[in-house]
Amino acid sequence: MKPIVALILGSESDRVIGDKIYEKLKQFNIKVEYRILSAHRNPEALEKFIAETKAEVFIAVAGLSAALPGFIASKTLKPVIGVPRNVKLEGLDALLSIVQMPPGVPVACIGIDNSENAAILAIEILAIKYSSLREKLIEYREHRKKKGAKIIADEN
Amino acid sequence: MKPIVALILGSESDRVIGDKIYEKLKQFNIKVEYRILSAHRNPEALEKFIAETKAEVFIAVAGLSAALPGFIASKTLKPVIGVPRNVKLEGLDALLSIVQMPPGVPVACIGIDNSENAAILAIEILAIKYSSLREKLIEYREHRKKKGAKIIADEN
Amino acid sequence: MKPIVALILGSESDRVIGDKIYEKLKQFNIKVEYRILSAHRNPEALEKFIAETKAEVFIAVAGLSAALPGFIASKTLKPVIGVPRNVKLEGLDALLSIVQMPPGVPVACIGIDNSENAAILAIEILAIKYSSLREKLIEYREHRKKKGAKIIADEN
Amino acid sequence: MKPIVALILGSESDRVIGDKIYEKLKQFNIKVEYRILSAHRNPEALEKFIAETKAEVFIAVAGLSAALPGFIASKTLKPVIGVPRNVKLEGLDALLSIVQMPPGVPVACIGIDNSENAAILAIEILAIKYSSLREKLIEYREHRKKKGAKIIADEN
Amino acid sequence: MKPIVALILGSESDRVIGDKIYEKLKQFNIKVEYRILSAHRNPEALEKFIAETKAEVFIAVAGLSAALPGFIASKTLKPVIGVPRNVKLEGLDALLSIVQMPPGVPVACIGIDNSENAAILAIEILAIKYSSLREKLIEYREHRKKKGAKIIADEN
Amino acid sequence: MKPIVALILGSESDRVIGDKIYEKLKQFNIKVEYRILSAHRNPEALEKFIAETKAEVFIAVAGLSAALPGFIASKTLKPVIGVPRNVKLEGLDALLSIVQMPPGVPVACIGIDNSENAAILAIEILAIKYSSLREKLIEYREHRKKKGAKIIADEN
Amino acid sequence: MKPIVALILGSESDRVIGDKIYEKLKQFNIKVEYRILSAHRNPEALEKFIAETKAEVFIAVAGLSAALPGFIASKTLKPVIGVPRNVKLEGLDALLSIVQMPPGVPVACIGIDNSENAAILAIEILAIKYSSLREKLIEYREHRKKKGAKIIADEN
Amino acid sequence: MKPIVALILGSESDRVIGDKIYEKLKQFNIKVEYRILSAHRNPEALEKFIAETKAEVFIAVAGLSAALPGFIASKTLKPVIGVPRNVKLEGLDALLSIVQMPPGVPVACIGIDNSENAAILAIEILAIKYSSLREKLIEYREHRKKKGAKIIADEN
Repeated sequence: MKPIVALILGSESDRVIGDKIYEKLKQFNIKVEYRILSAHRNPEALEKFIAETKAEVFIAVAGLSAALPGFIASKTLKPVIGVPRNVKLEGLDALLSIVQMPPGVPVACIGIDNSENAAILAIEILAIKYSSLREKLIEYREHRKKKGAKIIADEN
Repeated sequence: MKPIVALILGSESDRVIGDKIYEKLKQFNIKVEYRILSAHRNPEALEKFIAETKAEVFIAVAGLSAALPGFIASKTLKPVIGVPRNVKLEGLDALLSIVQMPPGVPVACIGIDNSENAAILAIEILAIKYSSLREKLIEYREHRKKKGAKIIADEN
Repeated sequence: MKPIVALILGSESDRVIGDKIYEKLKQFNIKVEYRILSAHRNPEALEKFIAETKAEVFIAVAGLSAALPGFIASKTLKPVIGVPRNVKLEGLDALLSIVQMPPGVPVACIGIDNSENAAILAIEILAIKYSSLREKLIEYREHRKKKGAKIIADEN
Repeated sequence: MKPIVALILGSESDRVIGDKIYEKLKQFNIKVEYRILSAHRNPEALEKFIAETKAEVFIAVAGLSAALPGFIASKTLKPVIGVPRNVKLEGLDALLSIVQMPPGVPVACIGIDNSENAAILAIEILAIKYSSLREKLIEYREHRKKKGAKIIADEN
Repeated sequence: MKPIVALILGSESDRVIGDKIYEKLKQFNIKVEYRILSAHRNPEALEKFIAETKAEVFIAVAGLSAALPGFIASKTLKPVIGVPRNVKLEGLDALLSIVQMPPGVPVACIGIDNSENAAILAIEILAIKYSSLREKLIEYREHRKKKGAKIIADEN
Repeated sequence: MKPIVALILGSESDRVIGDKIYEKLKQFNIKVEYRILSAHRNPEALEKFIAETKAEVFIAVAGLSAALPGFIASKTLKPVIGVPRNVKLEGLDALLSIVQMPPGVPVACIGIDNSENAAILAIEILAIKYSSLREKLIEYREHRKKKGAKIIADEN
Repeated sequence: MKPIVALILGSESDRVIGDKIYEKLKQFNIKVEYRILSAHRNPEALEKFIAETKAEVFIAVAGLSAALPGFIASKTLKPVIGVPRNVKLEGLDALLSIVQMPPGVPVACIGIDNSENAAILAIEILAIKYSSLREKLIEYREHRKKKGAKIIADEN
Repeated sequence: MKPIVALILGSESDRVIGDKIYEKLKQFNIKVEYRILSAHRNPEALEKFIAETKAEVFIAVAGLSAALPGFIASKTLKPVIGVPRNVKLEGLDALLSIVQMPPGVPVACIGIDNSENAAILAIEILAIKYSSLREKLIEYREHRKKKGAKIIADEN
């Protein structure tokens, strides 16, 4: 059985970030339920989806007051990753809305517009259960390691 | 028939602000449904209340990521007044979460911890329909006007 | 009798936001008194307008120190909606100027540059008295609901 | 003829700053018209005062959205000094409201809660016309100069 | 086999937050390796611990430039939860340092000083693998739900 | 005798703001000593200029840590107007550097990049002594007043 | 010959930070010229001191607009360490004023109120020339390392 | 023997700043070890470099949570200069991460994106030991001084 991630956007405009998360998750062979489900415009459809999905981790992308990740967190006990988008105020509004959750309803907040980290954190969480993911993560990090060191100039 | 306001707090600790709003509304002879209903901890009870209340205006008090006013606004078409509380970051987190709502789901945001303005705005809104409130507002403002001018020193 | 909204801009440059508010209000069949009236440059004309208008709700758009909404609120007991514009500092100056009103003179603050919410909040307020507006609001929200849920990918 | 300064507070609570400005001005033998005149609660009394006063410089103290200095500036062509008070948000709201005035209506903004600088700036401005003030300013600065240099430790 | 969490503080002063996280984890019957290991003062001991621990999730508490969570994340592929502490600047420095990680090295950031959410997020993550934790989480949330709704006043 | 203003820029790049201030002052028939004099790069030339100029008001334009206005204020007892420029951080760094002066050395701070207000404030200050300027200011404001009120739409 | 540090405060109130820097430097056997020399109140005494001192590194402590470190940097080519103090705005004003220096006149900025780091950075800089300081630094860091790791709880 | 600076970037994208620092250092005839070495992606290579280099001063450029300068500072006792880059939030995140270091592990922080100051501060530090650098610095500053004063207009 494949691990499943629910990737939820607050609106069509969030796809600039959402599509990159989707691509990264697919590279790790994750099954992704990728949907637009607005907490403010269509909470009923969102609630229904949360109740029915077999996904084990949620990723929610939102800008402005960014209630989506917290809304999901209030309806599930599975880990919820929140991705603040820079729509106004350099993304500070979305960042604070997502990270400053009340006690008992945590959201795992990621950097502003940071699609890569949303995907990798989801995979790290799933890798606790799915050991095959751990191996892929090791590969991934090895690959990045190589790009993390380079001599530009070293004259004598 | 008396005008009704629903006054909702996110948690017991919000009563430092909530109780002052309540008192002010009572001075204007408003009927107040005053409850703690957390959007994150008990969304079902909150939804049920929103669906059933006869209140014509909502006032919601919340700190931190402060999703409460926006949650209510997504479930009703009545005006929702949001009151950000200073719990962390001088209240900037709550202010941005409440005011930066996505298009189509407005919340009328009031200053940080500003109980007086939450009550008065609710009354101004109700006064569109209930003309007796307008008279009380005129009295209220006249009273404040007197305190708004004073000679402290004026030597020659 | 039609409901009336007074839509006031601090300067010509605010029309990028003001014209969208106007269009939205017209879609709801609201009568709009749409004017440029600067609190700082022409307070006399502004005061005269506030005293004479039959409008039941004010919407004021302003950037920078954004005194316009507060000025109106000090001269009327009708609800005043303030719309902060991003002219400098990402709009944080206008937001704080509009929302942090002194006790007793509330302004209902809306998100930065958020024309849609200014119009919808005004309509929600008027709908307390004008029941026909409530029906239009229900339609409006149903329409938005449909756009608030979409399956982007759901592979197996 | 003595130089006159109009010192205006938005509310009684501003006296913690206002009284210090008053004392400093009196030390320079300035005549001070010291009053509470709220722009939001009693704009009529404020306007009347602005129209009638013989003061040549205004100092206005205000917190929160701090419209007072800008209001005065819109009603006079004399220099207006604005003093932001820390009531909320460390005084950042009042600072931005006072300093970010629209073009054509300047306010001379001073540091947060900085009573000393409000008085000294007023005196520097008046000293352009009243040469006796210049001499007192020279004394004042000489006095401060002495306190501006001290050897605490200088071991060998 | 019991689930294990590594709870790491940057300094002794972080125990005001750390001890609460520890208590909460113990309530869920988690085995906790609770240590002070400074990324800046003793990186060697920290690296050794990260390499040897059997913990499946890390929680790192830090203030100021708060490099600890990111340091751990660069040395492991297990999920790392970062808890910003308010030491200076209301905790904004620690929050930004923890959340704004570079792509590929995610930290799951929690609200400022929010010990409860650090523990609960760790448990939610572990519950993906340890189903007994899920049941305890359901109980926990039910318990909180009861406190999330209360009628304060409802006069007629 | 003509009134004189010293207009000082921290660097060549400040001319985008400085040249507008110059033009505005010339419209009011002010004599302007317009120079680049950096407090950090050439303090000696700056000090010499301050000591020798007959100007009665200083305007200093600066970005970043913006020490120029404060430097001048420490060397003169004439009024100094500071104009913060947006070079980094939306101009917040320059604004705080200019406005938060220590007690006894005031700078009259103007809004970010607000060339118009720098010129007008200087003229308002000079008008205390030069009555001809007062008349020009009245004209100026009357002209702006006309642009401060306009009916955009007023349908019935 | 002993290494010399010039430790300069903007005012008496800065001694809460300055005295700690002094103590730390003395522990490393540095000769310290410790003085109050205000850039704004007594620039002449400050300039004289900068010109005459044999100190090889400067440490300058200042709050608010905090021009002191930059002033020194403009008068010397020796390294200048700036220490922002939290007087207003949580110290953000002083931090930005000190760190955002114009190109060509660097100040080495240290964390808000961080006396320890001011002293240690000065010593690290001097240790380039004075090798005995390097040994003391190694000891210092070893000492801190021991406090940087501790097992609080590790139950099984 | 030539003085050596280690110039380290967190990623390839930092070269927009790094290359300018390199050029400036070369103008002063400094030997530069210029490398990309990520603290998060390749800490092992970075540690190895720090341990082996003969450089006497480090310059580290980083954006976002910007752990690089602090990481280096924790592994060396040589002076470390940190350069915050504006990648998100106008560079405020990187600035705070770099400057707010814990006591005992200082980083000398420079303005956002300020390549010039990073190089000049490194040279000022090295000039304590290498007297030839001092002469070049004097030349450099003389050159800048000439550009720091200019008469733009001075009409009579």
